[in-house]
Amino acid sequence: MKTDYRTVTLTGGFWKRKEDLNRTVTLPAVYDRFAETGRIGAFRCDWKEGMPDKPHCYWDSDVFKWLEGAAYSLYRENDPDLAAKAEAIIDQIERNQGEDGYFNIYFTVVDPKGRFTNRDYCELYCAGHLIEAAVAWFEATGEDRLLRIAEKYAGYLKAVFMDKTAGPAPAFKTPGHQEIELALIRLYRCTGNRDWLDFGAYFINTRGLDPTEGEGNSASHGVQVQSHIPIRRQFEAVGHAVRETYQCAAVADLAEETGDRELLSLCCTLFGDITEKKMYITGGVGASSRGEAFSIPYDLPAAQAYAETCASIGMIFFAHRMNRVEGDAKYADIVEKELYNGMLSGLSLSGDAFFYENPLEIHLDNAKKSARYPVSRRQRIFSCSCCPPNLTRTLSSLGQYFYAWEGRTVWINQFGDSVFEADGMRVSQSTRYPCGGKIVIRAQGTGEIRVRIPSWCQSWTADRNCRTEKGYAVFSGDGEITVDLAMEPTFMQTAVEVYGNLDTAAVQYGPLIYCAEAADNGGDVHSLYLNGCEPDWKTRICPVCGCPHLSLRGFRRRNASPALYHPYRDLFEETGITLIPYHAFANREESNMLVFLRYKDTPPKETAQPPEERPDPADPPSRPS
Amino acid sequence: MKTDYRTVTLTGGFWKRKEDLNRTVTLPAVYDRFAETGRIGAFRCDWKEGMPDKPHCYWDSDVFKWLEGAAYSLYRENDPDLAAKAEAIIDQIERNQGEDGYFNIYFTVVDPKGRFTNRDYCELYCAGHLIEAAVAWFEATGEDRLLRIAEKYAGYLKAVFMDKTAGPAPAFKTPGHQEIELALIRLYRCTGNRDWLDFGAYFINTRGLDPTEGEGNSASHGVQVQSHIPIRRQFEAVGHAVRETYQCAAVADLAEETGDRELLSLCCTLFGDITEKKMYITGGVGASSRGEAFSIPYDLPAAQAYAETCASIGMIFFAHRMNRVEGDAKYADIVEKELYNGMLSGLSLSGDAFFYENPLEIHLDNAKKSARYPVSRRQRIFSCSCCPPNLTRTLSSLGQYFYAWEGRTVWINQFGDSVFEADGMRVSQSTRYPCGGKIVIRAQGTGEIRVRIPSWCQSWTADRNCRTEKGYAVFSGDGEITVDLAMEPTFMQTAVEVYGNLDTAAVQYGPLIYCAEAADNGGDVHSLYLNGCEPDWKTRICPVCGCPHLSLRGFRRRNASPALYHPYRDLFEETGITLIPYHAFANREESNMLVFLRYKDTPPKETAQPPEERPDPADPPSRPS
Repeated sequence: MKTDYRTVTLTGGFWKRKEDLNRTVTLPAVYDRFAETGRIGAFRCDWKEGMPDKPHCYWDSDVFKWLEGAAYSLYRENDPDLAAKAEAIIDQIERNQGEDGYFNIYFTVVDPKGRFTNRDYCELYCAGHLIEAAVAWFEATGEDRLLRIAEKYAGYLKAVFMDKTAGPAPAFKTPGHQEIELALIRLYRCTGNRDWLDFGAYFINTRGLDPTEGEGNSASHGVQVQSHIPIRRQFEAVGHAVRETYQCAAVADLAEETGDRELLSLCCTLFGDITEKKMYITGGVGASSRGEAFSIPYDLPAAQAYAETCASIGMIFFAHRMNRVEGDAKYADIVEKELYNGMLSGLSLSGDAFFYENPLEIHLDNAKKSARYPVSRRQRIFSCSCCPPNLTRTLSSLGQYFYAWEGRTVWINQFGDSVFEADGMRVSQSTRYPCGGKIVIRAQGTGEIRVRIPSWCQSWTADRNCRTEKGYAVFSGDGEITVDLAMEPTFMQTAVEVYGNLDTAAVQYGPLIYCAEAADNGGDVHSLYLNGCEPDWKTRICPVCGCPHLSLRGFRRRNASPALYHPYRDLFEETGITLIPYHAFANREESNMLVFLRYKDTPPKETAQPPEERPDPADPPSRPS
Repeated sequence: MKTDYRTVTLTGGFWKRKEDLNRTVTLPAVYDRFAETGRIGAFRCDWKEGMPDKPHCYWDSDVFKWLEGAAYSLYRENDPDLAAKAEAIIDQIERNQGEDGYFNIYFTVVDPKGRFTNRDYCELYCAGHLIEAAVAWFEATGEDRLLRIAEKYAGYLKAVFMDKTAGPAPAFKTPGHQEIELALIRLYRCTGNRDWLDFGAYFINTRGLDPTEGEGNSASHGVQVQSHIPIRRQFEAVGHAVRETYQCAAVADLAEETGDRELLSLCCTLFGDITEKKMYITGGVGASSRGEAFSIPYDLPAAQAYAETCASIGMIFFAHRMNRVEGDAKYADIVEKELYNGMLSGLSLSGDAFFYENPLEIHLDNAKKSARYPVSRRQRIFSCSCCPPNLTRTLSSLGQYFYAWEGRTVWINQFGDSVFEADGMRVSQSTRYPCGGKIVIRAQGTGEIRVRIPSWCQSWTADRNCRTEKGYAVFSGDGEITVDLAMEPTFMQTAVEVYGNLDTAAVQYGPLIYCAEAADNGGDVHSLYLNGCEPDWKTRICPVCGCPHLSLRGFRRRNASPALYHPYRDLFEETGITLIPYHAFANREESNMLVFLRYKDTPPKETAQPPEERPDPADPPSRPS
């Protein structure tokens, strides 16, 4: 099946607002930060020792990702200022590309002799992002200037790495940070030049054949960069999570293009390994701050969650491709989980501040002990600022995740007011999703409509006969279809193996995972207990985040003794609990936060009155989030 | 009140066996490790650049602590071999002491110009341990050779640091690692020379007056070494836990000697801060591996517990002194807690392997991720091997903690078969403690007997009229008294603020804190739930550790779904749970371990049969621990 953001127009609702915020706030803000920090100016390639803003080896990639996002945005909405900024960058790339096709700022102005000598230095990663930006720019604008630059560069890299007909001889065989693999396959799809598919496949198939590769490079060796064994024997997700998910995305692409069943099966195995053993309920992956990496199975600590925003975006890439190959809704389920939770938490509601790590618990006192984790406040830029432009390119190409098609069949993967148009077909959705589960679909020219029934949905109805297949409700023909997905707040339990979550529950409502912030809950969330017997749910739509906020009955554990340790005695007071969507946390003052709250499904044996001085946590927050 | 290990003879039971193990195994083993690693040979002071076993700055103190322990042991039991080893060390100290009195191996052979230049280098800490060893040697043997060496050295240090009449002028005013303060007061008590009390008081009262002291020393500046504010304003336990507890012990000594109410009040405040906010249920203190330090209040993570053995010993020193000054049983309660749990866990049942850190949870898979924590296996020696000789000196002078006296009043602080004799009084105990709570006391020549009623004890009887005061049952006169302390396994709850312990309980039985090891519990302890309604306790005395092992009814949580996240549903199977004393953990194969187990005081809504392949965890362990 095919997907293309250009076939989809978001017309209203939650994601349309995010797309607009991205265009009006996030894209300009990221550009401004990049200009302030010298990343944009670096493209003049005139930096010399002693000047400020010494280019860093991954700066190119930050700007290329921004450029890619700008291209998507320009396709949707003309913006002369944005176009001028993008063109100016492309001018500089054109001006400074080497005769041989090479383009890399760091290895042009900082270390001209270092080309291809150090696998740590993200050279091929930057090249991959140049290629992606070039394809995006061409597809969005029809201008092939950057595409020609990219092809020339790709040709040079192929000669150096694969054909070995150009120099210098590189000190490594495959990239330290995967990205160029999927970029080359994308370049192949755009240009039809099979060289790029072969070159991408070469990197994929060569990776890990020599387990000593990169031994001299501190950060680009072995398991950490998925170079420990050949890719075809990598059955467990390990190492740097962004590298792993980008690799998986590339392998899925290659499997799709070549029909390689071994690679496809590998992708299925890795997808299962990640989603059933190594993923937070928010979709966050890469639990460990040590190496920004996947940890061992079931090691998913809440406060220490690294769960990089880029890794959630990598999971979107991977799951999206798997959905395209397999036509199975379970992959689009993960795309949805990431979009609404683990990815979106990376962005402030204001659109101009970012989380790199996305913790599932904040305990400010404990956080103060540590140099870095957990981070409790979004920042405007990072020294390694990969996440912000990764968000901008994802939020400006959201449509690709909403619809897919093949022949006369259209898959509806994500929900929101939108129109899909391709090959004479037109499908639209009208819905309040995620504030409600009713979706009215109008289809013209279609032979079949497949509507994803989300895995969170326990019951649903349709106003027309259908069958279900691979997680989709399958409707024949066209016309109007109403699908109603029942949305109920649900207490979600974690497998016993994640023992830190025992006796806790997270609340899910539709695709949204919720959290409790201290600001809404009397200053303390860690002693709260969800009332599992009589929650008495109430919802209200928050005008700021645009999603339902939830409140329910709960308990607060009180100390039965002033002693630090004392014979066991349960003492609870009744209290209201207010929950907000996880992605909306940390948008007010710094506050303790908890996704997995303690869960109690039996009435307490002993209750006490709440102390008078404590404000009623059931009150609506003074400032809505 | 007075205490002196020489007034007490352990005659049988748990601590007598530990004392014997220490004499026959631990003391020789520690000596052998010190000889193997060059620590003993270093006392020849003939090391030169290029030779192996370069002396480290704290090696002196390791051997001095061993020497102190050897002295106590020799007082109790003649051992020519042990005496010869100790004398040989003293010979070398005598031979290599400087004309001016100075003795420090590192600053004699490695960095002769560095004397008093670096607060990090434990110079005064080593001097303090030399003084303690000298006092111990003199009191045990009557030989004053080492005492004269120590006094000469102390005199030189006083001239340098306090009187400023000798050189070189030191780069710091007070020790980087507290120890010499309590040693000087001890030297004063032994010799009656008030100079040493004044000098100890000088260090105490000078500490923190200049908060910039040690700024150039990475590890000896500010809060970490309690130098951030004057001692008299230090109302919270902070920084390096051994330094803090040694400082507290010294301050308590000074308060005792001078009657300084301000210092005594300070000690009470710090004791409360530690025991009510910063102490593990095992007595472990210094939760943080970062700086081996006290963390913020209620930050007591189980798996990451640092809880250094030396810090528990420091707490024994502090609590013991407080008991002596205040005559309050609550201090002896903490001594008991440390002796049976946080300190003793530092020693293997075999007597020759040691924990430096004492975790309250082992999860081997998670431990493998980390370079160091938690440690799951005791070691024979450490590069910084302070804990093993600290154990040997404590275990060879246990008697001081059992009895105290003042006039004709005798306090019984710790329980075990033993005889106390002083000033014409004779008191003995006969008991199975800690295997039973009945204590038969026979007293001659006493005017009053005060028997500590442990804080863990919910009910007790005595066969004679008594009153209670400061946690003691107070009996008049002499003769035979039987006190029976009811021992019941008790589920212990932690204050809510330690939120990681919510819904868990530790089991305490008498003074012993228990833990579950996977070896006894079907391979997994993290999914076990204590049955709080119908525990059906069973006890058996373990022939190896000499303490009761416990078994009770419990549950094991089972996954209600194969999914990592799924709607909440409780599913339990019934299972037996076996608990062993915490101090006895990690004496078999490496095993997961848990002190705070999940606690369930309502019957499960749904139970399942245990899977057939799982061995019955209620079976006695194949090898007892």
